Amino acid sequence: MTRLLILGGSDAGTSAALRAREVESSAEVTVALADRLPNYSICGLPFYLSGETPDWHWLAHRTAEDITREGIHLLLDTTAQAIDPANHLVTVADREGQVRALEYDRLVIATGAVPVRPHLPGLDLPGVFLLRSMEDSFAVHACLETRAPRSAVIVGGGYIGMEMADAFIHRGLAVTVVEHGGTVLKTVDESLGRLVSAELGRHGVEVATGVAVERIAQAGTQLHVMGSEGFSATADLVLVAVSVQPQTEVAQAADIATGERQAIRVTRAMETNVPDIFATGDCVETWHRLLQAPTYLPLGTTAHKQGRIAGENAVGGHREFAGTLGTQVVKVFDTAVARTGLRDAEAAMAGFDPLTVESRSWDHKVYYPGAHELHIRVTGDRKTGRLLGAQMVGHYQAEVAKRIDIFATALFHGMRVDDLSDLDLSYTPPVSSPWDPVQISAQAWVAHRQRSLSP
Amino acid sequence: MTRLLILGGSDAGTSAALRAREVESSAEVTVALADRLPNYSICGLPFYLSGETPDWHWLAHRTAEDITREGIHLLLDTTAQAIDPANHLVTVADREGQVRALEYDRLVIATGAVPVRPHLPGLDLPGVFLLRSMEDSFAVHACLETRAPRSAVIVGGGYIGMEMADAFIHRGLAVTVVEHGGTVLKTVDESLGRLVSAELGRHGVEVATGVAVERIAQAGTQLHVMGSEGFSATADLVLVAVSVQPQTEVAQAADIATGERQAIRVTRAMETNVPDIFATGDCVETWHRLLQAPTYLPLGTTAHKQGRIAGENAVGGHREFAGTLGTQVVKVFDTAVARTGLRDAEAAMAGFDPLTVESRSWDHKVYYPGAHELHIRVTGDRKTGRLLGAQMVGHYQAEVAKRIDIFATALFHGMRVDDLSDLDLSYTPPVSSPWDPVQISAQAWVAHRQRSLSP
Repeated sequence: MTRLLILGGSDAGTSAALRAREVESSAEVTVALADRLPNYSICGLPFYLSGETPDWHWLAHRTAEDITREGIHLLLDTTAQAIDPANHLVTVADREGQVRALEYDRLVIATGAVPVRPHLPGLDLPGVFLLRSMEDSFAVHACLETRAPRSAVIVGGGYIGMEMADAFIHRGLAVTVVEHGGTVLKTVDESLGRLVSAELGRHGVEVATGVAVERIAQAGTQLHVMGSEGFSATADLVLVAVSVQPQTEVAQAADIATGERQAIRVTRAMETNVPDIFATGDCVETWHRLLQAPTYLPLGTTAHKQGRIAGENAVGGHREFAGTLGTQVVKVFDTAVARTGLRDAEAAMAGFDPLTVESRSWDHKVYYPGAHELHIRVTGDRKTGRLLGAQMVGHYQAEVAKRIDIFATALFHGMRVDDLSDLDLSYTPPVSSPWDPVQISAQAWVAHRQRSLSP
Repeated sequence: MTRLLILGGSDAGTSAALRAREVESSAEVTVALADRLPNYSICGLPFYLSGETPDWHWLAHRTAEDITREGIHLLLDTTAQAIDPANHLVTVADREGQVRALEYDRLVIATGAVPVRPHLPGLDLPGVFLLRSMEDSFAVHACLETRAPRSAVIVGGGYIGMEMADAFIHRGLAVTVVEHGGTVLKTVDESLGRLVSAELGRHGVEVATGVAVERIAQAGTQLHVMGSEGFSATADLVLVAVSVQPQTEVAQAADIATGERQAIRVTRAMETNVPDIFATGDCVETWHRLLQAPTYLPLGTTAHKQGRIAGENAVGGHREFAGTLGTQVVKVFDTAVARTGLRDAEAAMAGFDPLTVESRSWDHKVYYPGAHELHIRVTGDRKTGRLLGAQMVGHYQAEVAKRIDIFATALFHGMRVDDLSDLDLSYTPPVSSPWDPVQISAQAWVAHRQRSLSP
């Protein structure tokens, strides 16, 4: 019987707990989490705040009851203060500050990530919010309900920024997005980022790019946001959604090694450098399947996978994480933006000889009503022809997400771009073409490469 | 300079012609086709007949102008009568019966398939239709427009039958589908076929299964369809959509070898047994990647792939067909039905030890509006754990088609079911879950297998 202690009860921690019980039904599993709510869908917060998900309880991937029903012991509002690897003890404190020591045979650290707090004067003003946890979202929600703001400035044009722009417009607010980079959604190439900007514009969102926000100040009952390039905007609410960082102070204090952005360094079996201690989820480095190196890429999908592996291995299993490809998708109004694998510059840095070719095609035969155009960028290695990555923008009902997954599955197996034409993909006129857009874009890449190799 | 002659101008023939010109720009390419219309989307006929595609011209994958612009010589209304391999000649006849001989260096036979005409008394009555060619669809269309039928009986519950039931309901007809088997859509397992029957029922289609149609007779201005089990129905129009067979008489007369269902036997390079003669598309046997054997599986996607390979190889290339997985999808009203790989019985016949597990999951997080349930059946080998096939039914906007393609891509690479959980698939709450339904269904299979292996 393994006594398994897990610090953190979000995706990775809960997955670890459930998997451990699945594999060793006698395992004594305790999950200590700092919040009062386990395993809520952080990715769902924008939809709660938009009103599309009216009740926050619905956001539970699993409720506390679901988890305890599996024989898992939950310690809510319980924060880890120190890990003592030599004695296999963790000191925790509850909400009242009551401190106690918990014994473990195996420990899984799944303490997740926290938002980066930029050095921005005015960040603590009332009406200025970060968004990461359920508690954060309750604060924003309370503001929306009680103060009825009519306008919002969103600092940061990443995933959360895009989804919250959508959410606030859904609520009837006037929205301005301020982004430091040249386009929003810097996770995809500029030409695709511009399509997203256009989609924001179509829905009435003001977009200011190339602007560094410098300060936020009170302006009567409103907030005044000032930035470079003379940027100045006034709004009732400011949401700062810049980036996240791994939460690893307690682990570091116990001499658990960290790497990239101070995320915990783990093997592909999710072991730390300290015996009997595993770590998993947004607080760890992630093995990249294409780079064959660790990176920091906190994603819910990865947290679930890694949590499951940590849970299995903590009770004696031998599973290894197969690696991330950084596959991700976001819905911005009616548009889905997806990517997998490496972009051109990332591939070049990793020593590949990348070529990226953009093409357009219809998601299904245009003679059937409702066809949408897809913009696909394929990155491959000029020398070997190997597929390195793909990015796609199109209507969110045009199967963008699962088309990027065809690329992801091809990448997983190290396919050459040319060989994508060999895949036997499904077709009927209302959903595709005899050559799927995935294959049309691959053929465009191959043709472009051939032209570029000819004299 | 290769003189390339292609018999047939639908998907396979046109793909061969275009690819040959792409690879050898000096190739002299002639396409002789029996119809007056090259490369129309046969798969689109139901949507033309439903009225969703109002103009049949839109069905052209490529128009005659598109094709001739690529430097391809088109001979319309031209039927091959005999092939003389020794002298590299093909005798053709045009619409006026004028006969001439065409020389070739390389020949590609792409004569496609024709509907099976069941031995059914009454099949030639006015108002009874088969549906395969553009000309067939013009006949049905003329009947719909001029005779304004108010009811239809469809004989055959396969893809065409399902799509035409949808099309006729769209037109306001009362529709009865008669199917010999126990459920409609015998290309998927019975539990999924029943879901399709239910979808037909929701849209007012009468479904009679387990009925062998025995005769069609004139009944005043109507048609009377009689079958086993006392089946009897009267309608203004009868559509017979049973099956298709390869059109290979001319090839057989030239001693070109055939196999399965008299389809032309080809290598994976699309060569026949006769030098300088290739064959491709719905008139040939298709290499099955999982069975590692030839089969007869006429599909538009395969025709495009094989045509491209035949065209490339006919001008000196060395590409091989990677094999079919039988991946296919059909939309029936709001439901998509998709499959790839082998079903349980097919796998057992091929010597595998199959286990098929059905599970249900939501296409995306239910807290976001509009979630649809997916029914997924995964077939894998009990001994090795290898993925053998998958079938899926769900709302056609729930990314069913491209989810089956994730399975198809996994099958292509011989993955184990358990390893599907390693795939890095995209997630955002409006389109998926942290574990995609593909992975949830794989995990259900693995759990079921483990339980069945335990004492």
